[in-house]
Amino acid sequence: TRTGDPEVVYGAGKTPDQVVDLLRHLHTAHPDRAALATRLDATALDRVRAAFPEARLDEVAGTATLGPPPTPVGLVCVLAAGTSDARVAREAVHTVEAYGAGVRTITDVGVAGVHRLLAAKEEFDDADCLIVVAGMEGALPSVVGGLTGVPLVAVPTSVGYGASFGGLAALLGMLNSCAPGVVVCNIDNGFGAGVFAARVARRAHAGRGSAGAGETPNGETPNGAAR
Amino acid sequence: TRTGDPEVVYGAGKTPDQVVDLLRHLHTAHPDRAALATRLDATALDRVRAAFPEARLDEVAGTATLGPPPTPVGLVCVLAAGTSDARVAREAVHTVEAYGAGVRTITDVGVAGVHRLLAAKEEFDDADCLIVVAGMEGALPSVVGGLTGVPLVAVPTSVGYGASFGGLAALLGMLNSCAPGVVVCNIDNGFGAGVFAARVARRAHAGRGSAGAGETPNGETPNGAAR
Amino acid sequence: TRTGDPEVVYGAGKTPDQVVDLLRHLHTAHPDRAALATRLDATALDRVRAAFPEARLDEVAGTATLGPPPTPVGLVCVLAAGTSDARVAREAVHTVEAYGAGVRTITDVGVAGVHRLLAAKEEFDDADCLIVVAGMEGALPSVVGGLTGVPLVAVPTSVGYGASFGGLAALLGMLNSCAPGVVVCNIDNGFGAGVFAARVARRAHAGRGSAGAGETPNGETPNGAAR
Amino acid sequence: TRTGDPEVVYGAGKTPDQVVDLLRHLHTAHPDRAALATRLDATALDRVRAAFPEARLDEVAGTATLGPPPTPVGLVCVLAAGTSDARVAREAVHTVEAYGAGVRTITDVGVAGVHRLLAAKEEFDDADCLIVVAGMEGALPSVVGGLTGVPLVAVPTSVGYGASFGGLAALLGMLNSCAPGVVVCNIDNGFGAGVFAARVARRAHAGRGSAGAGETPNGETPNGAAR
Amino acid sequence: TRTGDPEVVYGAGKTPDQVVDLLRHLHTAHPDRAALATRLDATALDRVRAAFPEARLDEVAGTATLGPPPTPVGLVCVLAAGTSDARVAREAVHTVEAYGAGVRTITDVGVAGVHRLLAAKEEFDDADCLIVVAGMEGALPSVVGGLTGVPLVAVPTSVGYGASFGGLAALLGMLNSCAPGVVVCNIDNGFGAGVFAARVARRAHAGRGSAGAGETPNGETPNGAAR
Amino acid sequence: TRTGDPEVVYGAGKTPDQVVDLLRHLHTAHPDRAALATRLDATALDRVRAAFPEARLDEVAGTATLGPPPTPVGLVCVLAAGTSDARVAREAVHTVEAYGAGVRTITDVGVAGVHRLLAAKEEFDDADCLIVVAGMEGALPSVVGGLTGVPLVAVPTSVGYGASFGGLAALLGMLNSCAPGVVVCNIDNGFGAGVFAARVARRAHAGRGSAGAGETPNGETPNGAAR
Amino acid sequence: TRTGDPEVVYGAGKTPDQVVDLLRHLHTAHPDRAALATRLDATALDRVRAAFPEARLDEVAGTATLGPPPTPVGLVCVLAAGTSDARVAREAVHTVEAYGAGVRTITDVGVAGVHRLLAAKEEFDDADCLIVVAGMEGALPSVVGGLTGVPLVAVPTSVGYGASFGGLAALLGMLNSCAPGVVVCNIDNGFGAGVFAARVARRAHAGRGSAGAGETPNGETPNGAAR
Amino acid sequence: TRTGDPEVVYGAGKTPDQVVDLLRHLHTAHPDRAALATRLDATALDRVRAAFPEARLDEVAGTATLGPPPTPVGLVCVLAAGTSDARVAREAVHTVEAYGAGVRTITDVGVAGVHRLLAAKEEFDDADCLIVVAGMEGALPSVVGGLTGVPLVAVPTSVGYGASFGGLAALLGMLNSCAPGVVVCNIDNGFGAGVFAARVARRAHAGRGSAGAGETPNGETPNGAAR
Ligand SMILES: Nc1ncnc2c1ncn2[C@@H]1O[C@H](COP(=O)(O)O)[C@@H](O)[C@H]1O
Ligand SMILES: Nc1ncnc2c1ncn2[C@@H]1O[C@H](COP(=O)(O)O)[C@@H](O)[C@H]1O
Ligand SMILES: Nc1ncnc2c1ncn2[C@@H]1O[C@H](COP(=O)(O)O)[C@@H](O)[C@H]1O
Ligand SMILES: Nc1ncnc2c1ncn2[C@@H]1O[C@H](COP(=O)(O)O)[C@@H](O)[C@H]1O
Ligand SMILES: [Mg+2]
Ligand SMILES: [Mg+2]
Ligand SMILES: [Mg+2]
Ligand SMILES: [Mg+2]
Ligand SMILES: [Mg+2]
Ligand SMILES: [Mg+2]
Ligand SMILES: [Mg+2]
Ligand SMILES: [Mg+2]
Repeated sequence: TRTGDPEVVYGAGKTPDQVVDLLRHLHTAHPDRAALATRLDATALDRVRAAFPEARLDEVAGTATLGPPPTPVGLVCVLAAGTSDARVAREAVHTVEAYGAGVRTITDVGVAGVHRLLAAKEEFDDADCLIVVAGMEGALPSVVGGLTGVPLVAVPTSVGYGASFGGLAALLGMLNSCAPGVVVCNIDNGFGAGVFAARVARRAHAGRGSAGAGETPNGETPNGAAR
Repeated sequence: TRTGDPEVVYGAGKTPDQVVDLLRHLHTAHPDRAALATRLDATALDRVRAAFPEARLDEVAGTATLGPPPTPVGLVCVLAAGTSDARVAREAVHTVEAYGAGVRTITDVGVAGVHRLLAAKEEFDDADCLIVVAGMEGALPSVVGGLTGVPLVAVPTSVGYGASFGGLAALLGMLNSCAPGVVVCNIDNGFGAGVFAARVARRAHAGRGSAGAGETPNGETPNGAAR
Repeated sequence: TRTGDPEVVYGAGKTPDQVVDLLRHLHTAHPDRAALATRLDATALDRVRAAFPEARLDEVAGTATLGPPPTPVGLVCVLAAGTSDARVAREAVHTVEAYGAGVRTITDVGVAGVHRLLAAKEEFDDADCLIVVAGMEGALPSVVGGLTGVPLVAVPTSVGYGASFGGLAALLGMLNSCAPGVVVCNIDNGFGAGVFAARVARRAHAGRGSAGAGETPNGETPNGAAR
Repeated sequence: TRTGDPEVVYGAGKTPDQVVDLLRHLHTAHPDRAALATRLDATALDRVRAAFPEARLDEVAGTATLGPPPTPVGLVCVLAAGTSDARVAREAVHTVEAYGAGVRTITDVGVAGVHRLLAAKEEFDDADCLIVVAGMEGALPSVVGGLTGVPLVAVPTSVGYGASFGGLAALLGMLNSCAPGVVVCNIDNGFGAGVFAARVARRAHAGRGSAGAGETPNGETPNGAAR
Repeated sequence: TRTGDPEVVYGAGKTPDQVVDLLRHLHTAHPDRAALATRLDATALDRVRAAFPEARLDEVAGTATLGPPPTPVGLVCVLAAGTSDARVAREAVHTVEAYGAGVRTITDVGVAGVHRLLAAKEEFDDADCLIVVAGMEGALPSVVGGLTGVPLVAVPTSVGYGASFGGLAALLGMLNSCAPGVVVCNIDNGFGAGVFAARVARRAHAGRGSAGAGETPNGETPNGAAR
Repeated sequence: TRTGDPEVVYGAGKTPDQVVDLLRHLHTAHPDRAALATRLDATALDRVRAAFPEARLDEVAGTATLGPPPTPVGLVCVLAAGTSDARVAREAVHTVEAYGAGVRTITDVGVAGVHRLLAAKEEFDDADCLIVVAGMEGALPSVVGGLTGVPLVAVPTSVGYGASFGGLAALLGMLNSCAPGVVVCNIDNGFGAGVFAARVARRAHAGRGSAGAGETPNGETPNGAAR
Repeated sequence: TRTGDPEVVYGAGKTPDQVVDLLRHLHTAHPDRAALATRLDATALDRVRAAFPEARLDEVAGTATLGPPPTPVGLVCVLAAGTSDARVAREAVHTVEAYGAGVRTITDVGVAGVHRLLAAKEEFDDADCLIVVAGMEGALPSVVGGLTGVPLVAVPTSVGYGASFGGLAALLGMLNSCAPGVVVCNIDNGFGAGVFAARVARRAHAGRGSAGAGETPNGETPNGAAR
Repeated sequence: TRTGDPEVVYGAGKTPDQVVDLLRHLHTAHPDRAALATRLDATALDRVRAAFPEARLDEVAGTATLGPPPTPVGLVCVLAAGTSDARVAREAVHTVEAYGAGVRTITDVGVAGVHRLLAAKEEFDDADCLIVVAGMEGALPSVVGGLTGVPLVAVPTSVGYGASFGGLAALLGMLNSCAPGVVVCNIDNGFGAGVFAARVARRAHAGRGSAGAGETPNGETPNGAAR
C-alpha cells in the first residue's frame, strides 16, 4: 500500500470470518492507519461489530472503518438524487474519508427537479472534486457539469429496471455526456470514485496552503444525508 | 389513409425516380391533400424540385411537401439541443405540419446549459404536446419533463460516437427517464414523433374551441432554427 | 408535485415500513388528494392494509391507493393480450385513475387471435388515448395502431423466456412498429404509460366540454379484467 | 448434392468472374439440373447475362437460374408486407422453384393493415408451407400464424433503422412469436427458408397423389409482385 | 383451438391451483380431446397427479397430458446430445404426441462423437420431420443437416455457462448453420418445435396413404431415452 | 464559455466551411483566447490552413488551434502504447494545452513490454494527472495505476478488430480495472480526457506556488512522439 | 474416452445422487484410471466423501478425484491474481493432474502489482504451457505474454460486478490481447484450459526424454495456493 | 523480439509507405531473420513487391515475407471449410512458417459434409497442433475436437451475415464447444493462432529428435488450397 493510503478489504465474495480476519490482520500490522472494509452484508457487519466494538459502521453503505482516520485535506462533494442511490453515495463518502480528504454530501438533487440543484450550486462550486451518483438515465452529471468547472467523477448505479439493464443505461449516458470533462467509474463503484476524488482533492488543497487543511469542513448540507 | 392525414412516402431505400413517381401518383389521386416525402438525399431532393417546382423542400430535414397543407389545429413544440440534431427535429416539424397541427421550434437548449432551458420555459409550457430531440446521453427529456406537465415525446438521435452505439445510449437514457410520463420513439424517428404529437395536439385543441385553431402560432423562438 | 396530480410512492427497493411511513406522511400532508403506491409485494400490501384499512389495494397490480380519487376527465383504454401481462396493465389502470382520467380495460386480445381484436374495435376507437401492453414479440401495438388513429402508448412487458431477454424483444418490436405514431415506455412501466395517457386524455376531454367529464364511463368490456 | 436438388452458387464475397466460372462448371457437369446463383450485385448479373443469354435473372432478388427447372410438386406461399422486403421474398421464391415446389406470392399485407391480410386468407390457407417475410418489428408471422394451421417459416429482414439493429428486432420478435409453431431463419435468409419450405411442400404433396403435381398453380395473387 | 389440436396450458407463471383449474375446465369442455400442460414444476406436477390420477406425467419434461391421445399420423424424430437437454427434448416429444404425430427419440448423439451420429442415420432418415435439440455451441443441427434432406427444426437450449449467455450462443449457431434448410425456435422452446414438426409430419404422412398411419412406430432407439 | 477556457469547435459532422466560419467567429469575438477545433479531416485542415495561415495544425490529431495559448499551469502526462493510438493521444495533448496545463507525452509503452513502462516511471510519477490511452484490451491503465498514485484518466480507443467491437473491449477493461482510482472517458474521447486532466493539473499546480507555473516543462520523453 | 485420459463427470445440473452413481459406474469400469468430477457444490461433495472415503476432494475447486492419478509428464504453470479466482484456478490444477501433466501454482500476481509478477518470472518461464486465470479486466495474460514465449492459455472468470457483465469484460480483454499467441477459454472454464494445457505439456515433455518425466516437479511457489 | 521469432509488421491502419519503411528497417537490422507483414491490401502488396522483388507475397492472405525463413520444426495442420475462410487460414499458414514450424493445409472440410472430414482424419491426426478456421456457426472445431486428441486452436472468422454479427456467432460457438480442450482466438486472428500453434509444435517436435526436423513435410492435401 502506498504511504498514507488506508488498508482496504473488499467484502464481496468473502465470508464474514474472512472479513474479520483480514481486518484484524491489517489493523494489527498498521495500528496507526485507517482500515476500510466495503461491500459488507448484514451478517458481516454484525460480525465486525462484535469483533471490533470501536469500528465505525454504516449499514446503508455496507462499510466498516477501523483505526484513526487521516486528517482531511481538501474537499470532495458527493451529489446524489435520492435514497435509492444512497448505498453507492455513502460508499464513496467513507472511501474519501479513509483516503484523507474532507467530504460534503448533497442529496435529493435529481435532474427532474432542476431548481433544487440550482439552489445547491454554491454548496458544490467550491469543492476540489465532485462525485455525482445517479441511476436510471444517469443524466445528473451532464446537468451538474454544465453548472460548474470543478473536476467531476460520475458513478452510475444499478438502480432501475427494464431497459436500465443493471446500470448499463446510466453508464452509457454518463460516458456520452455532452458536458466536457466528465469522467466515469464502473457501475456502483463508489469506492473507485472515492479513491480518485480524494487524490485530486488532496493535491488541490495542498496547493492552497497547508494551514487550512485541518479546517476543511467535513460537513453536510441542510438536505443532506448523514455521512 | 385515415381521412385528413397526409399521403406519405418513406424515401429510404427508394430510388429518386421511385420517389417522384410515388409523389406524382399520390398527389394526382388526392390533389386536395398534402403529400409528404421523408428521408430524401440530395439527389432525390433535386429530382423532386425539378418535377414539382411548387414543392416545399427542406434540405436539412431531407423532406418534401406537396399540395395544400391542412389548417393547423393545436400546438406542438419541438425542442432540440443543437445543430447536430437538426435533421431529426425538422423531420418532426414537417410531419406535425402535414398531420395538421401548429408547430414551434426551440433550439440551442441542451442539458449542459440549463439556464437557457429555464429561460425558454414559457415558450413550451403552453403547448399541447412536446417533442424533445437529443443525441449523446439523451438527458434533455428528463430535465424538460421535470419543468412541465405537458405530454412529452422523446426522440433519441444517432448523433454521437464511441459508446453512443448509434443512438442506443440516448434511447436507453430516455426509456429510463426519472421524469414521469416521458414516452419514446425509435432512434432518429422524427416522423413517428410528429404523427403522434399532431394527433395529441389536434384532439387537445379541438376541446379548446375551434375558433382559435386557425390562429395557432406556427412560429419560432428568438433563438430557434427556421422551421 | 404539480397541482392535481397524486402523491406517488415507488415501492421497489423500499421496506414495507418505509412504504407505510411515506404513505402516512403524504396522506397527512395532502388529505384531499389521492396517494398511490406501486411495486408492492405481498408483505408490503399486508402492512399497508393493516395501517390503512380504507386503502384500495390491487394484489395483481401490486398497488395501493389512499385518499379521494380525482373526478375522471377523459377516457383511456388499456388493452392487453392475457393474464400474464395483467400486473403491468393494472398498474397502468390505477395510475390513470390516480392521475384523473377514466379508464376502460380490454383483455384477451392477442395478435394471434386477430378476430377478437377486430370485434373490440368500437370499444377502443372512442378513447382519448390507448395503452397497449404486450410481452413476447410485442406485436399488438402495430396491429391496433393500424386499426385506429387514437394516440397509442405501447408498454413492453418482461413476460417471455429465452430470446425475449427480459422484455427486450418486445421493446425493440414496439420501437420498430410499422404503424405510424406508436410511442413506447420502459419495460413493465405501466406507471409511466398511465401518467402520460391520463395527461393526454384530460387535455382532450377538457376540449369536449367539461359537463361530460363526470360521466366518462370508467367501465370494463364483457371480456375485460376487473379494473 | 442430394439427388434432384439444384446446384447452388452463393454469390456474396465472390467476384463476378468466380460466379460465372462456378455456374459454367456446375451447368456443364449437370446439364439436366437447375443451377441457382444468389446474392448477385448488378455487375455480377450483367456478367452472367453476357455469359449465359438463356439464364433467368431477377434483378430485385439478385438471383440467376440456369438449366431446366424441376417440375413443381406441392405449393409454397410467400407473404411479405411491401416493396422493401422484396429482395428477400424473391430470393425465397426462386429458391423454392429451384428446389422443386410451386410458389405463390402475396405482397402488400402488413400487420398495420390487417383487413388486407384477412382478405388474402384463402389464398394462403391451402398452401403446404408458408414463408412470411418481414422487417422492422417482424410481427407479420404472429398474425398469420393465428389465422392458419399451415406450417410457417418466418424470415426477418434487415429493413429498418435505429433500434432495428440490422434486423435483430425482427429476428427477436419472430423467435418470441405467441403463435405456436412459428420457426425462424437467419436475417435476410430467403434462400434457407426456400429450401426448407420446398422440402416440406414436396413431401406433403407427394402424399396427395402425384397426378396433381404438374398442375400446381405457380401463380400470383392479384395484388402480388411478379415471381 | 383449431379442430383436432389439443388444449394447452402453459404452466410458467401460473400457480398449481391455476394449472389444475385450467386443466379441469379444458378436460370437461373437451373430454374427447387431449389436454397438455407444459412447464410444470414439482409442486404443480404433484397437484395435477392428485387431481387427475389418470394423467400421464413426465417429471423430466415438466408436462402432464390428460384425455385420449390422437392417433399418430406421420413420424417426427427428436435428436438430442445428452441428459442435460432432456427437459427440452421431452417437452417436444409430448407436444408432438398431443398434436397427433408419431415420435421417435434418439439421444446421446453429440457433435463431439460423430461416429455414433453416423450409426444412427437410418433411424432418422425415414422420418417426416426432425427436431434437433442442442445447448452449448448448438452445432448438432449443422451436422445432421449435412447427413439428410429431411426437414429439420433446431431448438437451442439454455444449457451451458459463461459465454453461452443463457442459450444465445446455441441460438446464433443454429441461425447461422451452413447446412441449408435448418429453421430455428426460441431457446428451450420444445413446445413450438413440437407443434411445427407434428403439422409437417401429419401433412406428409397423409400423402403416403392413411392405412399406414396407425402403424407409425412411436418407438425408441436402443440408446434412446424413454419417451 | 467559462472564463479562461478556450473556444471549441467540434468538427465531426460539420462541413469545412462551417468549421472555418465558426473558427473565424470565435476568434474575432475572443482574439485574446485560444480557439481549438477537433475531429478535422484532411479537407477541413486544408481549408483552415488557407483561411488562417497562423493556425497550428496537427494532421495526426486532426486538430487546429488559433490565438494565443494560455500559460501552462501544472503538468499532465499522456501515455500511449503505440502509433495506432496516436490520433486520440494527440487530441488529448492539444486539448490539455488549450485548457491551460503543461503536457508531456510518453509513447511506445504497452503492457506486453512492461520493462519499457517501468523505465519510464519517473517521467510520469511527478505529473499532476495522467491520461492513459489504449486500444485492444485496454490493459495499460491497470498496470500504470499499480505503479503510481497520480490521478489517472483512461481513454479507450477504437483500435482493434473482431471482438474489440469498436473499442468496447477496451472500454469494459478500463471500467473494470483492478487498480483503484482509474476513471474512464468515452471511446476515442481524447478531448474529454484533456479537459478533465487540465482542470485537475491547474488546481494542483496552483497550490504548489504560482512562481513555477510558467516553467512547467511542456516536453517530450526520449522515446516520445512529438506533441 | 481416448486412452490414458481420465473419466470425467460434469457436476453442474446433476443431483448428488447422479454424481455418485456416475462416479461409481466409471470407477468400477476403469479401476486403473483416474475419475474426475467437477462443479460439485457442498452437498455433492459430502455425498461423494461418504460414498468414496478415499476420494481426493477440493472444496474450493468443487472437484473430486478417484482412482490412481497418472504419472505426471511435463509441467503446466497456473497463474492467478488472487483468492477470488481460486475456484477456477484450482479446477484447472486438478484437471491438469488428471490429464497427466505436472502442475505448479503461482497466485497473488495481479497486473496492478507488476513487480511481484516480475519476481515470479523464473518460476513460470520453464513451464511447457501456462494457464493464466483472471477476472475483472482480464489483463494478466497480456502482461505475462509479454514476459515469456511459453504457450499461454487465458481463462476469464466471472469475478467482478457492474460492467464486468459476468466475465464478458475479461473475456473480451483476453481475446484482444496485444501479446501475440494468447488463446482463450470460455468464462470460468478451468477444466477446458486444463485439458488443453496438459496435452501440450505431455507432448512437449515427451520430446525432452522420457527419463525425466517422473521427476517433473509438481510443486508450489512460496506464495502459491495449495494444489 | 524474442530470439528466433520473426520481425512482424501489422499492416492494418498503416499507409503502404509506412509498411515499406518498417519492412526495410526491420530487414536491414535483422537480415538473417524473416520479416512478416500482415493485413496488407492490394495497394500495399504492390508497393512491397516494387520495393522488395524478392519478397514472398500471398494476395489471398494479404501477407508478405522477406528474408530467410526459419527451418521448420514440428508440424501444424490448418483446417478450413472453404474458400470464404481462406484469407484467415492463409494468414495462419504464413505465420506458422515465419515462426518456425512446418504446416499442412486441409480445406473443403465443413461440418455439413462430415464424411470428407472423416476421410481426412489421418492427415491431421499426426500433427503437433491444429488450427481450425470457421465462420458462420463455427462448429468445425467441435467435430474435429471429437475426432482427435491433438491440441486444437479455433479461429472464428467474420464470414457470414445477419445474426452472424461479424463473427460473434462463430466466436461464441467455439468458446462453448462441447469438445474438451478447444481454445479460441479473436475473430479473423489467423496471426495469433499461428504464433501459438508454432510455439506448441516446435516444443513438441524438439522432443522427438532434432534429426527429423528438417524433414517435416510442409505439404498440402490433395484437396487442399495452396499454402
Ligand atoms: N421517416 C420515417 N420513418 C419511419 N417511417 C416513415 C418515415 N416516413 C414515412 N414513414 C412511414 O412509411 C410509410 C410509407 O412507406 P412507403 O410506402 O414505403 O413509402 C408511411 O405511411 C409512414 O408510415
Ligand atoms: N412451453 C411452452 N412454451 C411456449 N408457449 C407455450 C408452451 N406451452 C404452451 N404454450 C402456449 O401457451 C398457450 C396457452 O397459454 P395459457 O393460456 O397462458 O395457458 C398455448 O396455446 C400455447 O400456444
Ligand atoms: N473531440 C471531441 N469529442 C467530444 N466533444 C468535443 C470534441 N471536441 C469538442 N467537443 C465539444 O464540442 C463542443 C463544441 O461543439 P460544436 O458547437 O458542435 O462545435 C465543445 O464545447 C466541446 O464540449
Ligand atoms: N494480423 C494480426 N492480427 C493481430 N496482431 C497482429 C497481426 N499481425 C501482426 N500483429 C501484431 O502486431 C505487432 C506489430 O504491430 P506494429 O508494430 O503496429 O506493426 C506484431 O508484433 C504482432 O504482435
Ligand atoms: Mg437517478
Ligand atoms: Mg444531445
Ligand atoms: Mg404478448
Ligand atoms: Mg415489416
Ligand atoms: Mg449440446
Ligand atoms: Mg493498446
Ligand atoms: Mg483479475
Ligand atoms: Mg464455416
